[in-house]
Amino acid sequence: MSGAVALDHLTKRYRLDPGKKVALDEIPTDDKAGWSKDDARPATAKLWKRLLERQEVLAATDTHALLIVLQAMDAGGKDSTIRHLSRGLSVGEAEVAAFKAPTDVERAHDFLWRVHRRVPPLGKIGIFNRSHYEDVLVVRVKELVPKAVWKARYEQINAFEALLASANVHIVKIFLHISKAYQTKRLKRRLDLPEKHWKLTADDLRERKRWDEYQRAYADALERCSTEAAPWYVVPAEHRWFRDLLVARIVVERLEALGLEYPPPTIDPKDVVLE
Amino acid sequence: MSGAVALDHLTKRYRLDPGKKVALDEIPTDDKAGWSKDDARPATAKLWKRLLERQEVLAATDTHALLIVLQAMDAGGKDSTIRHLSRGLSVGEAEVAAFKAPTDVERAHDFLWRVHRRVPPLGKIGIFNRSHYEDVLVVRVKELVPKAVWKARYEQINAFEALLASANVHIVKIFLHISKAYQTKRLKRRLDLPEKHWKLTADDLRERKRWDEYQRAYADALERCSTEAAPWYVVPAEHRWFRDLLVARIVVERLEALGLEYPPPTIDPKDVVLE
Repeated sequence: MSGAVALDHLTKRYRLDPGKKVALDEIPTDDKAGWSKDDARPATAKLWKRLLERQEVLAATDTHALLIVLQAMDAGGKDSTIRHLSRGLSVGEAEVAAFKAPTDVERAHDFLWRVHRRVPPLGKIGIFNRSHYEDVLVVRVKELVPKAVWKARYEQINAFEALLASANVHIVKIFLHISKAYQTKRLKRRLDLPEKHWKLTADDLRERKRWDEYQRAYADALERCSTEAAPWYVVPAEHRWFRDLLVARIVVERLEALGLEYPPPTIDPKDVVLE
Repeated sequence: MSGAVALDHLTKRYRLDPGKKVALDEIPTDDKAGWSKDDARPATAKLWKRLLERQEVLAATDTHALLIVLQAMDAGGKDSTIRHLSRGLSVGEAEVAAFKAPTDVERAHDFLWRVHRRVPPLGKIGIFNRSHYEDVLVVRVKELVPKAVWKARYEQINAFEALLASANVHIVKIFLHISKAYQTKRLKRRLDLPEKHWKLTADDLRERKRWDEYQRAYADALERCSTEAAPWYVVPAEHRWFRDLLVARIVVERLEALGLEYPPPTIDPKDVVLE
């Protein structure tokens, strides 16, 4: 553990300060902040336990919500991140919304309509598996709308997220950062393991060719939309055990900062007689 | 373990065969089928692991869904059952719907409207924390609708559940069975622990006075609505470790019976070249 960045200082290393220039290629995708797998695993398990406790208080008080926005390139580990973070969540108070290509009904509305409907209500933890950020990522790279339209979206997103924050929906945004070489390795794994074949689509392979364009689109989105109210974190995601540690810590820190306590009783326990 | 009912035979002991008379007071609430806590805990952990695997295949195939309906008297352990079963679920592919007193909008529809909207889509596991059964339980006991209306609901529920089953939404219904003495103990605990005070409401105490009426309403609902397609299980719920074992086994058994496998690839892995 000597040389490892202490938990208390870990997350700010990966938080993007508002207004700061983002150069993704200068942020190592395999960083582990001096941690070893053997130290990280038990530390993560402890954080999951604290998360379960915080989730229960959050549900009991019903006055705040947490929204975790998760974005990554293909094979970046979004599903696996959610699966692992689930060890610290009860399904009863968590809601995951996965956003795919919009349906006809969704396309008949502004781009924030479908995500607004899936914002977690007070008392819950919501996770967006992909999100409204796709509307400045894939939509930009594939030129699905004119440039003026997607360019206006950064401000629209910031205004939307500020609205949520004003209504006690706290937001943390996590970008799982991987290299192209790592993506190659993960896609090769899907080719090698028969039970992973179904995960491989022609679309993944097409999108891969536009790696650099996606990285530029990500850098712009992270830079323009990391705000005090809803910061972006760039999480090095090639060591899954480090990714799990960091994600758990980001979430627990945000929840603990709320300082929530169990609500007072609605009836005086002294008055109760149980026959 | 000598004398314990083997896992393979465990669930059928608690499944209500269609058409069978239900006498709840003849079913022990503290049964443990010869199991000890020390044997049950690791067996349950293994079942949770199988559940995680089955959930992943369910999500990958996207052709079937599972709906778990959970009902119990107050302090019967619904929330805690969901929290524990969460150890075998990823939040990404599970949806919990908690049904409370209906809203104005919900009341402006038939009683199945609000539950129909929350049925899990193919690929997911849904849990109903309370359900449409409240409409033949609290609604009956409190006489919120005329007798002719709630009496017609048993058949309406059976038709609704048969519709879901025909669309590959498989249903298991679990009644967490406790005694009134056990409820007293759990409510006392809420009185004794400050962090549990908020869970105690005046409503709990009022409803408690109608214990016998609720038990009769439950017996009728279980008897009239345990079908081949959507069986009811009466789960002795006073030993939480036994309850967790049994619930996990019921769910895993249902999922494994589907015999699902990972879907074939949409592209031939042999044709893929990764640069």
